[in-house]
Amino acid sequence: MRLVRYGERGAEKPGLIDAEGRLRDLSAHVPDLAGEVLADLSALKAIDPRTLPPVEGSPRLGACVGQVGKFIGIGLNYADHAAETGLRVPREPVIFAKYTSCLSGPDDPIIIPRGSVKTDWEVELAFVIGRKGRYIPEEEAMSHIAGFCVCNDVSERNYQAERSGQWSKGKSSDNFGPLGPWLVTPDEVADPGNLRMRLTVNGEVMQDGSTATMVFKVPFLVSYLSQFFTLHPGDVVTTGTPPGVGMAMDPPRFLKAGDVVELEVEGLGRQRQLCVDDA
Amino acid sequence: MRLVRYGERGAEKPGLIDAEGRLRDLSAHVPDLAGEVLADLSALKAIDPRTLPPVEGSPRLGACVGQVGKFIGIGLNYADHAAETGLRVPREPVIFAKYTSCLSGPDDPIIIPRGSVKTDWEVELAFVIGRKGRYIPEEEAMSHIAGFCVCNDVSERNYQAERSGQWSKGKSSDNFGPLGPWLVTPDEVADPGNLRMRLTVNGEVMQDGSTATMVFKVPFLVSYLSQFFTLHPGDVVTTGTPPGVGMAMDPPRFLKAGDVVELEVEGLGRQRQLCVDDA
Repeated sequence: MRLVRYGERGAEKPGLIDAEGRLRDLSAHVPDLAGEVLADLSALKAIDPRTLPPVEGSPRLGACVGQVGKFIGIGLNYADHAAETGLRVPREPVIFAKYTSCLSGPDDPIIIPRGSVKTDWEVELAFVIGRKGRYIPEEEAMSHIAGFCVCNDVSERNYQAERSGQWSKGKSSDNFGPLGPWLVTPDEVADPGNLRMRLTVNGEVMQDGSTATMVFKVPFLVSYLSQFFTLHPGDVVTTGTPPGVGMAMDPPRFLKAGDVVELEVEGLGRQRQLCVDDA
Repeated sequence: MRLVRYGERGAEKPGLIDAEGRLRDLSAHVPDLAGEVLADLSALKAIDPRTLPPVEGSPRLGACVGQVGKFIGIGLNYADHAAETGLRVPREPVIFAKYTSCLSGPDDPIIIPRGSVKTDWEVELAFVIGRKGRYIPEEEAMSHIAGFCVCNDVSERNYQAERSGQWSKGKSSDNFGPLGPWLVTPDEVADPGNLRMRLTVNGEVMQDGSTATMVFKVPFLVSYLSQFFTLHPGDVVTTGTPPGVGMAMDPPRFLKAGDVVELEVEGLGRQRQLCVDDA
């Protein structure tokens, strides 16, 4: 299934994309794609999509999961990206927080904070926890995942690295967490460790990589994170970015108002963001 | 007002502590101490507490705020604590994330994670955002605060500092965020910049400080944080700890099952936690 949340921000309704690519309304079946609904999607799978009301027009899509508790980023998780930033691949995963207030829809604008000069892009594969767990063995990890989606881990490099310690400051501005368009259930993702991922700015290819070069893979990450805290339904983990971020260019290149960022991960859909100043 | 949330975890009801120290039920007036309720507490202030049903017995208290979006820590915010850790006072605030799943009631146990050997304590003054804001001028900061409370910023030092970058890993284990007992409204806190704070382990005084030695003060922090992201009702900021943490002792001392931690901040009440192993 390709699940979506559509409608105005804060009032999104659940839906799905049928085999013909048509948006259909799921709100008679579940209140939201959030919380315990994510723990067992089998009831939704049993529905014949043709029985669901089609949604007219092209409503806004919201982040593909609601009521996110934790929004966890994995840092330096591609060997080639670590190299371009001049940092070494860590011995174990670097985890950092994106405050959940940064979550936005896949096509919502990227809002460049006032005074920001180093807003950057990062195409990433994200996964969403479905089933609660603590101290999860790696071999059981996949059973805790509700689905996969695209994430743009938008980052302000000056805030992140030049303004006194800890990355959260540069990872959490409003709309720095476009998530979606779809939450794709694991049965439709043949191998999350082998997905092509691309990102363009104004049509120019900036990132063109594959999850194949990810250092710490998805099942390991689920198990690893659960050693530190309980994972709950609706927790989102975005797993790191391949090479090609703006700060690693020579000279560095950052986003400005009017730029258009487009990104996709194979099989998980496409995001498009217009950059705007925070007036 | 001294506001509380009482009852079983996940099903807490709102209440207040009256002038005689008695717990009274507020649930006929507000659904929870959360979200937009925090933006305007004047309706609650207008209620004569004697008209509220008293609550019998001594129910568990939960974290004094519900539906917390961001749980933000300020690092190294006491000059004397920075000195004891061997680190310099930063030029601007260090902010880090405690994932909200770590929130717990003031007297809930501290759960020592499996394999943890460096679980430590930190008595702190926390404040709770009431009114949404972005780019908040320092002179308007206090109008965005719903209240103050005690926080134990429980920290696993091995996870925090010796396990590959970013502190969130050691700041967010289950029950690492005891918050409360009370959310005290600003009219009852004469000067948040001059509150005594103490923490004992098994009755032995470990921390005995004052918010007077805080480097970056509450109004500055509100304004500063709002430069990076929107602050929402229910966001919690815990503002740093004075000297006396276990890792700075010679030899270092950490919590083990059976230890009892008690802490208080002047006028904001007292917490008591029994340490237990995560069986």
